[in-house]
Amino acid sequence: MNPSITFESVEHAAKRIEPYVHRTPIITNASINTLTGCNIYFKCENLQKAGAFKSRGACNGVFSLSRKEIKNGVCTHSSGNHAQALARAAMIRDIPAWIVMPETAPKVKVDAVRHYKGNITFCKPTLADREHTLKKVIEKTGAQEIHPYNDYKTITGPATCCLNHTGSRDFDIIMTPVGGGGLLSGTAITVKQISPDTKVYAAEPSGADDAYRSFYGKKFVPSINPVTIADGLLTSLGTLTFPIIIEHVDEIFTVQEQTIIKAMRLIWERMKLIIEPSAAVTLAAILENKALFEGRKTGIILSGGNIDLDHLPWIK
Amino acid sequence: MNPSITFESVEHAAKRIEPYVHRTPIITNASINTLTGCNIYFKCENLQKAGAFKSRGACNGVFSLSRKEIKNGVCTHSSGNHAQALARAAMIRDIPAWIVMPETAPKVKVDAVRHYKGNITFCKPTLADREHTLKKVIEKTGAQEIHPYNDYKTITGPATCCLNHTGSRDFDIIMTPVGGGGLLSGTAITVKQISPDTKVYAAEPSGADDAYRSFYGKKFVPSINPVTIADGLLTSLGTLTFPIIIEHVDEIFTVQEQTIIKAMRLIWERMKLIIEPSAAVTLAAILENKALFEGRKTGIILSGGNIDLDHLPWIK
Repeated sequence: MNPSITFESVEHAAKRIEPYVHRTPIITNASINTLTGCNIYFKCENLQKAGAFKSRGACNGVFSLSRKEIKNGVCTHSSGNHAQALARAAMIRDIPAWIVMPETAPKVKVDAVRHYKGNITFCKPTLADREHTLKKVIEKTGAQEIHPYNDYKTITGPATCCLNHTGSRDFDIIMTPVGGGGLLSGTAITVKQISPDTKVYAAEPSGADDAYRSFYGKKFVPSINPVTIADGLLTSLGTLTFPIIIEHVDEIFTVQEQTIIKAMRLIWERMKLIIEPSAAVTLAAILENKALFEGRKTGIILSGGNIDLDHLPWIK
Repeated sequence: MNPSITFESVEHAAKRIEPYVHRTPIITNASINTLTGCNIYFKCENLQKAGAFKSRGACNGVFSLSRKEIKNGVCTHSSGNHAQALARAAMIRDIPAWIVMPETAPKVKVDAVRHYKGNITFCKPTLADREHTLKKVIEKTGAQEIHPYNDYKTITGPATCCLNHTGSRDFDIIMTPVGGGGLLSGTAITVKQISPDTKVYAAEPSGADDAYRSFYGKKFVPSINPVTIADGLLTSLGTLTFPIIIEHVDEIFTVQEQTIIKAMRLIWERMKLIIEPSAAVTLAAILENKALFEGRKTGIILSGGNIDLDHLPWIK
């Protein structure tokens, strides 16, 4: 296990964030089980505060820092769920959040950050300009950066998600989406501690398969020009998450765009749950590999539910 | 209390249907509470088996009859949630379900009934032809009719829904949608028994306001040419449900179509839950009457989540 992340630190994180996050339900669905032949338990982090598991890492980050450390607020660059989760966590602790967002970010995400009183600085939609703009924000404000995944606190945060999920300890498989790798590496640490025989799998879009290539090539490959509807899974793995994934994860699957949309719609239609495309890659992996999952007790983490309801992939 | 429905019969129904229905979660949402000024607890019957509270009445109907009574199966006429709930209950008990549906019924509803192995007979989309066709089906099959709401079993079924909901007994208000009145009358019986000081309210579309006019006029008014997006609330009150509503319900609110759509979208967007328009009328009533609900602990039953995902009211 990585020396900087112990299982005890995950248990501490769980206590720390408990007042600020939901204990989300685990839901099963008979018709999806029949359709897949798999025995699936859905951990509903789409019902989490601010609509995604990111609230766990953001709250853990904000509440583990001392008053002195956060006296000038917190900051990050993010176009997605971490941005609103961090703005919300900062609002609860009554400190400012400085959020760098690309000027192309969807209005619905910008509105969500503003809803939680985040101070937005827009930048050009390149990683270089995001980092440069964040650097300037830090120089000006003195705010503490909370990275969306490449920070031990935003790994132990989502690691708490399956503390409860694997309570029964008899899962054959636990599977998460993988983007930057915070949810996956955190989950792997917790699961391998609680239930060493449980396999930890991940899924990502074939159009953004850097984790897949890094994992099997055992060498970090950055995400270059990824193309996928799963906008939460565009980023590269982090330098902290990659080694944890190499050490603890068993398999990574890539899935096709059409299967992502099909899986997303299945969950909407049969389970009455709104999930974003990124959250559908795990069920998509089961749909594309039915024989492998047949009859196995599989926990999957529905990572988030933030989506623009005016633009759905099946309505042209 | 109505002599034919005792609180004990509700408790018996709860035990009878327990193996076949979900104990659905109760979910709160901070941002909707802030927006409304009300303290709302959402009972998620949209997450119920077959996507609606109707599974409670259908299972109670099917499982309270003797083997002899149901030897030829069960039947109903319904274009909506009761049709699939009854087909599912019959499938579990391994008897045939004969469902009369108007030929105009949406494909998604027809598919759902077929998914549960229901035998469909199509008819013209008039109440007269629905009843006439059902009569012929009964003559031919000898099946037992299970009415969607005007039957004590399909009143005590949904009455079980808030057995759990009012567990804490300190709600100021419990509110349900009202169509035929099964959910409302069942809820009223349970709530007034468990917590006599809790007010029981109902909401319906202003374009289908027969319950409103019947309730305040104290005289049954049928639903004639109702026009509303809330397709589950088109029917008239039943002869059994109307007197229970008169006796136990405190207020009925009518709501505008635009508010129904707004409330529905709010629940989709903020709670990540898919509900059908009929399930949104209660939150719509709160949005249209904020002062009345301000600061009050209010339980609302999200009645169902069956909707055609290809046609959403906010996408033209």
